[in-house]
Amino acid sequence: MENFNFYSPTEFVFGRDRENETGKYVKKYGGTRVLIHYGSGSAVRSGLLDRVKKSLDSEEIFYTELGGVKPNPRDTLVYEGIEICRRENIDFILCVGGGSVIDSAKGIAAGALYDGDFWDFYTDKAEIEKALPVGTVLTIAAAGSEGSGASVVTQESTKLKRDTGSDLLRPKFSVLNPQLTCTLPAFQTACGAADIMAHVFERYFTNTAEVEITDRLCEAVLLTMIKETPRVIADPDNYEARANIMWAGTVAHNDIVGVGRIQDWNSHAIEHELSGMYDVAHGAGLAVIMPSWMEFVMSHNIMRFAQMAVRVFGCQMNFENPEVTAKGGIRAFRSFLHSIGLPVNFAELGAREEDIPALVKNLGLGDGKTGGFVNLSSDDVAEIYRIAVNAKA
Amino acid sequence: MENFNFYSPTEFVFGRDRENETGKYVKKYGGTRVLIHYGSGSAVRSGLLDRVKKSLDSEEIFYTELGGVKPNPRDTLVYEGIEICRRENIDFILCVGGGSVIDSAKGIAAGALYDGDFWDFYTDKAEIEKALPVGTVLTIAAAGSEGSGASVVTQESTKLKRDTGSDLLRPKFSVLNPQLTCTLPAFQTACGAADIMAHVFERYFTNTAEVEITDRLCEAVLLTMIKETPRVIADPDNYEARANIMWAGTVAHNDIVGVGRIQDWNSHAIEHELSGMYDVAHGAGLAVIMPSWMEFVMSHNIMRFAQMAVRVFGCQMNFENPEVTAKGGIRAFRSFLHSIGLPVNFAELGAREEDIPALVKNLGLGDGKTGGFVNLSSDDVAEIYRIAVNAKA
Repeated sequence: MENFNFYSPTEFVFGRDRENETGKYVKKYGGTRVLIHYGSGSAVRSGLLDRVKKSLDSEEIFYTELGGVKPNPRDTLVYEGIEICRRENIDFILCVGGGSVIDSAKGIAAGALYDGDFWDFYTDKAEIEKALPVGTVLTIAAAGSEGSGASVVTQESTKLKRDTGSDLLRPKFSVLNPQLTCTLPAFQTACGAADIMAHVFERYFTNTAEVEITDRLCEAVLLTMIKETPRVIADPDNYEARANIMWAGTVAHNDIVGVGRIQDWNSHAIEHELSGMYDVAHGAGLAVIMPSWMEFVMSHNIMRFAQMAVRVFGCQMNFENPEVTAKGGIRAFRSFLHSIGLPVNFAELGAREEDIPALVKNLGLGDGKTGGFVNLSSDDVAEIYRIAVNAKA
Repeated sequence: MENFNFYSPTEFVFGRDRENETGKYVKKYGGTRVLIHYGSGSAVRSGLLDRVKKSLDSEEIFYTELGGVKPNPRDTLVYEGIEICRRENIDFILCVGGGSVIDSAKGIAAGALYDGDFWDFYTDKAEIEKALPVGTVLTIAAAGSEGSGASVVTQESTKLKRDTGSDLLRPKFSVLNPQLTCTLPAFQTACGAADIMAHVFERYFTNTAEVEITDRLCEAVLLTMIKETPRVIADPDNYEARANIMWAGTVAHNDIVGVGRIQDWNSHAIEHELSGMYDVAHGAGLAVIMPSWMEFVMSHNIMRFAQMAVRVFGCQMNFENPEVTAKGGIRAFRSFLHSIGLPVNFAELGAREEDIPALVKNLGLGDGKTGGFVNLSSDDVAEIYRIAVNAKA
């Protein structure tokens, strides 16, 4: 096992109607002048935003607003948020929304207390040394940003999607009410599920041997997703299934299922170029890329893929030829993704084979390699995109 | 799923040689005048205490010491610690040891800032409103106290063992170096394993339906313990196995495997009377009580025990008669405990059947009942003790 630090200080406030306590938690964590950050009109239309504001009112907390976050959040809105924070002496950022809203808020939180350009944090030109406190009211189980210190933002002018991370960006509290996710369209629910599973797989495939506890915790989350996702696709109002998925989404990404091992994260990087270029949902892109990446790297450690197949997808172990089992696991994963309504190849996603050179170029590996499980070159990445072009469920 | 809050703000500092960074973390969390609290001579003899002190010296942090914590920590030493904290203006308590040392330190931490008798917190006469910060350097995987807000202390004069809990008692940081556990005698290692597994089972057996994610996380920890414990019994220096057990012990008790459900905790309460009366190791008492409790309550939910049998102990499901599978799971658990060298009945533990009335009386249920899975009366508890008298592996 690798040495590690695990630090997840966020207070998770989980369950029915808990958003009505938001004001109490903002106060508990020191917020007196709040920027409420949200996305499209759905938080407004559903009345959620009003309930959150009412809870702030009842604690007599000042707030101002910045809506309009889009999926794959843009740097332009982050700049706007930073400006508001400085003008209004904001001391707490409250996100009402999903991963995009939270990621955007984290950019604002770090940028507001930084003299330079916040984009420096996303291009490794500077390290985050302070940030405004952030709280969240989550509306979709997917990104895990409510329990992580990570943030992904897209630069509007270049379409480049880049990430940063710091323990300082971990939310002080996150309100998780599964009821809020019951109105999500099936496709968005499925995209969230793919994202959650990908967060686990990026940690599961490792060259660090004998981290049984982390392996088993990874498998716990994956088994839960395989059981619960089809239930919510069939029955969107199923609170229990929604609740399991929502908590699984947080556990999948606060790194409790990742400690003690070298992680990979190539699939995320390879996908980011797709959602950056086509503005498709991140989860949909992952459904296309993740199994294709698995096929490409499988030979690196057949037994690890066989373990996934047996423990996660319930495949029978082929002791004479483990590769058959390993392949069966990947096939089962892709079939699962397709069964919940996700694309599994370029055409279904709306991507084009002829863009592969541009996608590879945008990834920016050049002559280098990247990845914790298998080191990939630009040529390898191109091959993974090509597998994804032709993939079938 | 039940509504819940999950809050585990402890920074876990895991891996080889990490105790040499202790001073850095004490400083990070504001300690300037430290009480080092420890147990018997082993932390001294092994040189661990010297390494920890050296790391405090290198940060120029003042410290004083209080050793002598015994298993089943006594109130008398807590009073002594409180006195030292007040006299020396201590602002941070650093534990070097196992659960007993940490539990003792938590009593001191709460008592030092309280005008009344700290024992009030353990008898529900007062609630903890403030506490000195605590940090730990853990030397045995067992109690999970390094990641929990719980503390158990025994009143010397009455032998009564009582517990308290508060988020304020959660350690600021916990250094977990598996190397430090390699010198533990096999029996203590096994007792720790039983304690870890019991922490999971107390949460696993619940009447709250459909908390798949928590079930699976519970099973993840149990499966890890079943794989890794025999390895360390056979090969005490196996770092990887020690590391898996150490982290499993923390995960088992910071409540990540317990959220969203009503928990039970009767086995712990029933065991506490044994270790209170006979001063036996808590884990050894649990090895005797936990399977006996399972036998007594099994009929309450046969399918839950069948799930445990199949998913945790790899039993075949008997679809025609699930009770056979359920019983097989309990038998497998008791066999496992015996195989790692633990007692499974009164005689092996050193307890006496004729003390059952006194044990039941000390538990103090009177005409009442307690428990989250099955509500037990004093008569029920007596019956569980009687099952434990005659149990065989």
